[in-house]
Amino acid sequence: MTRATLIEQIRLKKSYLCVGLDTDPQKVPSLLKNYPDPVFEFNKRIIDATRAHCVAYKINTAFYEVSGATGWETLQKTAGYIPSTHFKIADAKRGDIGNTSALYARAFFETLSFDAVTVAPYMGEDSVRPFLEYEGKWTILLGLTSNEGASDFELQPHAGGMLYESVLRKASRWGTTENLMFVIGATQVDWFTRVRAITPDHFYLVPGVGAQGGSLKEISEKALNKDAGLLVNASRAIIYAGSGEDFAEKAGAVAKSYADEMGNFLLNC
Amino acid sequence: MTRATLIEQIRLKKSYLCVGLDTDPQKVPSLLKNYPDPVFEFNKRIIDATRAHCVAYKINTAFYEVSGATGWETLQKTAGYIPSTHFKIADAKRGDIGNTSALYARAFFETLSFDAVTVAPYMGEDSVRPFLEYEGKWTILLGLTSNEGASDFELQPHAGGMLYESVLRKASRWGTTENLMFVIGATQVDWFTRVRAITPDHFYLVPGVGAQGGSLKEISEKALNKDAGLLVNASRAIIYAGSGEDFAEKAGAVAKSYADEMGNFLLNC
Repeated sequence: MTRATLIEQIRLKKSYLCVGLDTDPQKVPSLLKNYPDPVFEFNKRIIDATRAHCVAYKINTAFYEVSGATGWETLQKTAGYIPSTHFKIADAKRGDIGNTSALYARAFFETLSFDAVTVAPYMGEDSVRPFLEYEGKWTILLGLTSNEGASDFELQPHAGGMLYESVLRKASRWGTTENLMFVIGATQVDWFTRVRAITPDHFYLVPGVGAQGGSLKEISEKALNKDAGLLVNASRAIIYAGSGEDFAEKAGAVAKSYADEMGNFLLNC
Repeated sequence: MTRATLIEQIRLKKSYLCVGLDTDPQKVPSLLKNYPDPVFEFNKRIIDATRAHCVAYKINTAFYEVSGATGWETLQKTAGYIPSTHFKIADAKRGDIGNTSALYARAFFETLSFDAVTVAPYMGEDSVRPFLEYEGKWTILLGLTSNEGASDFELQPHAGGMLYESVLRKASRWGTTENLMFVIGATQVDWFTRVRAITPDHFYLVPGVGAQGGSLKEISEKALNKDAGLLVNASRAIIYAGSGEDFAEKAGAVAKSYADEMGNFLLNC
């Protein structure tokens, strides 16, 4: 999906919501237990119930790998079920030496047809390059993450700023605003002004809203730009909104409430 | 596998060789093409031909993910085929927020029964902790990698040293020499003396020997310690040593020649 199409979808739906399909097999409602693939059935219903309110879906690979090859089948089927109108993110946090990263890029962009994959920056440019080289695909590089451990390295002083700032500065020369986004955690609201100053035009994928406690309002005020420039992800807060027969309906309602809020914030940008 | 058992295996075999099963489906010899799972058949024969000369096998997940769920089945079967006498490494370079890293740890340590998994340090302690918490299992943290991109961040000045040094220093407080190793690339030979000064007792997983050009002799001279303290990996140089009917035999011969060299270096440590 191109940047222009993504922005068009955001304007159309008045939403920059990304729904995280972090589906823990142990948390699938019991009414789905007798389906041949309960996780896929769950994901399908969540997608059907939320698609009108979001512009992206994010699949975190850990939740599927935990079930081995069977989990990868579910991942494949889920990726295939996501409508082509939606930006499809593999939250895989991969990264390796060049020839190996090229295989990861092929795995997520070709074998699984994702639009984007999250990538770890530690190993530097040649570990990221193969992802950037895919025409029409996106690399979402870890910048500043939403967890406590961000203080161990990302927020450490480095080259006159902080390490994550160096990552943003260097990496924004490797790619463009058409093929590179950054992960910026919602729990790090105070840093959003600095982040926007370094990368004014890039899109950010923002996890940490909802269960992790980040504030949608504060982030939106600090980080929306003229093209929106944000994909805000919520996972647990949406997909586990209910656990009974109406779980999908409840997920849809929470997604809608996020989208409604976003619609208001978009009016001001 | 415990540290004591690993050291015992190294002494017994006079080898600290790790064979990297980075099996590219497109490079499997044509004589195996008619097997139901050519990559698995290839891996089996490589394992049979090399097991006497190595103490560890390393499976890089990228080479399997590129084939989707089918690839993960091959990965699972290959992991199951590695003898329990050998240290079994998932070279997955994972790392995520705590609850997600816990799922990766379960995927590699429980679902796939690996002894160790490689982990990226960028997201800090809580992204690594769930791997370290598995009794009897190992975390192999990226320290200094073998690729050019190491100069982008890892070798950048940081806190009076270099970033990778901070990673070694901090992380060695998170785990012990019984559950934590570091990836130190063989192409960075000049840094091995510094690396050993910071972490004298840890094991290192050393990729980059062979196809990537690292020198086994130099690394061994600089980094062997009293318990060996090294697992030196070669992938392409061994598994693609031949491409005809005798491919496994040739792989075995290359593995043996590495082990013979290592036997000599071990005499001096």
